[in-house]
Amino acid sequence: MKLQVAIDRIELNDAIKLAQKLDPIVNIIEFGTSLVKDYGLLALNKERLGIKHAEVLLDLKTIDEGAYEFTKGFQTGADILTVMGAASQGTLTTTYQIAQQTQRQMFIDLMEVTDQKIQQIADFEDAIYGLHHAKDSQNSFNATKAVAMFHQKYPQIKRLNVAGGIDLTTARQLSNQNLVETVIVGSKIVKAADPIVAAKEFMEVIR
Amino acid sequence: MKLQVAIDRIELNDAIKLAQKLDPIVNIIEFGTSLVKDYGLLALNKERLGIKHAEVLLDLKTIDEGAYEFTKGFQTGADILTVMGAASQGTLTTTYQIAQQTQRQMFIDLMEVTDQKIQQIADFEDAIYGLHHAKDSQNSFNATKAVAMFHQKYPQIKRLNVAGGIDLTTARQLSNQNLVETVIVGSKIVKAADPIVAAKEFMEVIR
Repeated sequence: MKLQVAIDRIELNDAIKLAQKLDPIVNIIEFGTSLVKDYGLLALNKERLGIKHAEVLLDLKTIDEGAYEFTKGFQTGADILTVMGAASQGTLTTTYQIAQQTQRQMFIDLMEVTDQKIQQIADFEDAIYGLHHAKDSQNSFNATKAVAMFHQKYPQIKRLNVAGGIDLTTARQLSNQNLVETVIVGSKIVKAADPIVAAKEFMEVIR
Repeated sequence: MKLQVAIDRIELNDAIKLAQKLDPIVNIIEFGTSLVKDYGLLALNKERLGIKHAEVLLDLKTIDEGAYEFTKGFQTGADILTVMGAASQGTLTTTYQIAQQTQRQMFIDLMEVTDQKIQQIADFEDAIYGLHHAKDSQNSFNATKAVAMFHQKYPQIKRLNVAGGIDLTTARQLSNQNLVETVIVGSKIVKAADPIVAAKEFMEVIR
């Protein structure tokens, strides 16, 4: 299992400093939607951010204008871009084509997507599907249970990621469960007393 | 009926020049999602953009993290921010509260939202509801027909806007129909040989 660290809702300079420290340790560094919307894609060029080892995911949350956003997004050097499962089939098809052509990755965020819609969009073979617990949701979230249920419903989806309040215990459970390609961790690393130590602990338990 | 001009997918400097020229003519100037995601909210401060007469709408397309995005968005001085109807009820409730508290406007983008979901979110009394034809959609769009059908289904929604390939003829029809508060025009003004002349023509037909 891989570890993706989500950096979000902090100042860009702090995000860059943290990302550079995490770069040699974790698999994927996510620059969250807040960084995209506050500072813009032009401020998030992978080379200028100084990310050398990890993959970079920009949480674009594209929901329309797929060609424009994915073209601009990959021009930053990003390895993975996100699109909302709630987008139209046309948007998803367009962003998938661009990801395939540029040999990059498309991550489909399944937040607030109905079962019926998931069935309709489950056939992007190389896409990463993200079980994502909305930050604004009032409900609690059991990640391993959600993953098991999802896998049972959509066995055709091979690449599954999960995000939403993941701690060390949950990360270990997900690793043992062996259904998820990447676990996404935010505050449990970014807001830890020592994010580097925390990231290393997560890398240990998901081995 | 009011006129909103949507400026999108051009360089920020060109967007600002055009916006300042349109400012004394039109009712609302929209800075599109591409400008938000390419340049960031920090580059879209209303005062620094030099917009003095028109209202400013930033097409944030919030789908999660409602409190963060609407707080940051209104800090730019924007009068109206957009949230996706596809967002969770929690997100919509949060963004509505922030708009009410700050005496600004929330615009709900209904793109790819099911009838069932619209019924669930139809009760934000002061919100503006936007019928929005996805740019990536393959289907054609008849704005007056869509508005008439929408009004019949959801008579409780008082503030309705419409966007998607609106030309002068359609704008006149919508004005006569008298169901829409604001018509949103993009390329028919922004890509016209003379955008100022085009904007004035639209203002004439919607009077």
